[in-house]
Amino acid sequence: MTQAIGVFDSGVGGLTVVRELRQRFPHEEIHYLGDTARVPYGTKSPRTVERYALTCQEFLLEKRVKLVMVACNTASANALPALQERAEVPVIGAVHPGALAALEATRSGHIAVLGTLGTVRSGAYEAAICERDPKASVVTRACPLFVPLAEEGWGETDIAKLTARRYLSELFQADGHVDTIVLGCTHYPLLRDVVAEVCEELCSAPVRIVDSAAAMVSQASLHLGAEETPLKRPAGALRCSVTDASRMEELAPRFLGETLDSLELVDL
Amino acid sequence: MTQAIGVFDSGVGGLTVVRELRQRFPHEEIHYLGDTARVPYGTKSPRTVERYALTCQEFLLEKRVKLVMVACNTASANALPALQERAEVPVIGAVHPGALAALEATRSGHIAVLGTLGTVRSGAYEAAICERDPKASVVTRACPLFVPLAEEGWGETDIAKLTARRYLSELFQADGHVDTIVLGCTHYPLLRDVVAEVCEELCSAPVRIVDSAAAMVSQASLHLGAEETPLKRPAGALRCSVTDASRMEELAPRFLGETLDSLELVDL
Repeated sequence: MTQAIGVFDSGVGGLTVVRELRQRFPHEEIHYLGDTARVPYGTKSPRTVERYALTCQEFLLEKRVKLVMVACNTASANALPALQERAEVPVIGAVHPGALAALEATRSGHIAVLGTLGTVRSGAYEAAICERDPKASVVTRACPLFVPLAEEGWGETDIAKLTARRYLSELFQADGHVDTIVLGCTHYPLLRDVVAEVCEELCSAPVRIVDSAAAMVSQASLHLGAEETPLKRPAGALRCSVTDASRMEELAPRFLGETLDSLELVDL
Repeated sequence: MTQAIGVFDSGVGGLTVVRELRQRFPHEEIHYLGDTARVPYGTKSPRTVERYALTCQEFLLEKRVKLVMVACNTASANALPALQERAEVPVIGAVHPGALAALEATRSGHIAVLGTLGTVRSGAYEAAICERDPKASVVTRACPLFVPLAEEGWGETDIAKLTARRYLSELFQADGHVDTIVLGCTHYPLLRDVVAEVCEELCSAPVRIVDSAAAMVSQASLHLGAEETPLKRPAGALRCSVTDASRMEELAPRFLGETLDSLELVDL
C-alpha cells in the first residue's frame, strides 16, 4: 500500500489545495480531513485553533500519511510550530509558501494579505514575509464575507464585487504601492477573478494575485519528486473524512472541481 | 441572592435577546453564555448541535438560573426537547414564540422564515407553524451572508441591500402571497431595516417582520410577572461567559446596545 498525503482544513476550503495537488500529482493518494464540526477556525482564539489542529493532525498521522498539508491558513498561522513538533513526517503550512510566493511576485515590495480574522490577527504573514525581506511592507485585511460568498457560489456576482471593492479600497488607501495580493484563505481562490477585476478598477499598475493553495503544492513538490503527467499510472484515490455531516458533499465540487467518491464521518 | 435568567447562544447574536430582556425587565439579573469556541451552530448537524446545546444549558443550570432562554434558533430547532427534558426550570426556545408571533401577524397565512442553514434544514418553523394552523403556508430561506454582514456592522450598506434582495426575491418568487417574514436568527435584527426596505421594493402589499428575539421575551414574561419600569429598583447585573476569547467584547455593543461590564472565559 502506498502512503497517502494527508491534508486537513477546518472545512471545505482546503479542497482547493487538493484540487491543485491532483492536477500536479494525479497519481498520489490523498486523505482529506475537514473538521466541519468545528468550522470555522478563523474566528477562534489561537489556543483553541492549536488544540483543534493537533487533533486533526493526529487523526491523519494514525493513517500513516507521508506528508501533512495544513490547508487552512488560520491553523497554519496559529499552530504550525506545535504541529511540526508532534510529527515525524514533513508538515507544510499555508503561510510560509504564500509569503515566499508573494516575495517572488512583488516588484514594489508592498504586499497585501487577505485572510480570515484569525489569520490576520496572528500577524503570521507579516512575520513570514519580513523575516525573509525586512524591507517589505505588508498590509492585511480580514474579509469575513468571502467565505459565505464562496460557499453560496456567488463568487462572480455584483455582491462579491461590491464586497471586494470595499475590502480592497481600504487596503489600497492604507498602502497605495501594493502590487501583490495574497489570497490567504483556502476559500478565496473562488473569488480570484472578482479580486483581479476590482484591482484593475482601483489600480493603474498591474497587481499580481498569489494563491496560497498553489504555493503550498509547490512546496510539497520538494517532498514528492517530479510532477507527473496523467495517464502514466491510474489516478490516486481521494479519501475524505469529516467531523460533521454538514454540506461537504454539496459544496465539494465547487472547491475540488470533481465530485467526492466517498465521505466518512469521524469523531475526533 | 436573586436568581438570574440564563441565556445562551452559539455566539454573540443572542445578545439581541438580552437587549430585549433588559429593556422590558431591567431589574432582572442575566447570565449570558456565548459558545464562541464552537460558533456557528448553523452549519452543523442536529446531533452535534444538540450535544453542544446540552453542555451550554448544563453550565447555566449549575449557576442555578431560574429560567433558560435558548437564544439560538439553530439550537432551539434541533435540541429543544432534549434541553427541556434535562432541566427542572422552564426552557424557552426561539422557534415556538417566533412561530406564534408570525401566526398572529399574518393575514394571508403565507409566512416566510429566514434563518441559518441548520434552522432551515430542521424544518422546525414549518412544524411549529403548521401544528397551530395546518392551513398556513411556510417558505424558508437560509441567508448565510447575513451573519457576517451583521458582525461587520454592514447592516445598512448596499451590499446588505443587494444580498437581502437576492434572498427575498427568491422567497417572493416561491410564494407571492407572503405577508409576514420571521427573522429566524438572533443576528438578523441588525438587518431588520434593510429587509423591510427590500420588502417595500418587492411587494405592493405591506409585509410584517417578526423578530424572534422579541417573541421569546414575550413568552418569558409569562414566567417573570409584570414588566417593570426602570428606576424603581437598581438595574440587574449582566454576567457574560464565553468559551473562547474571540471578538465578543468588540461585537457585543452592536448587538446589546451597551458595553459589557465583565467577560469570563470558561471551558465547557
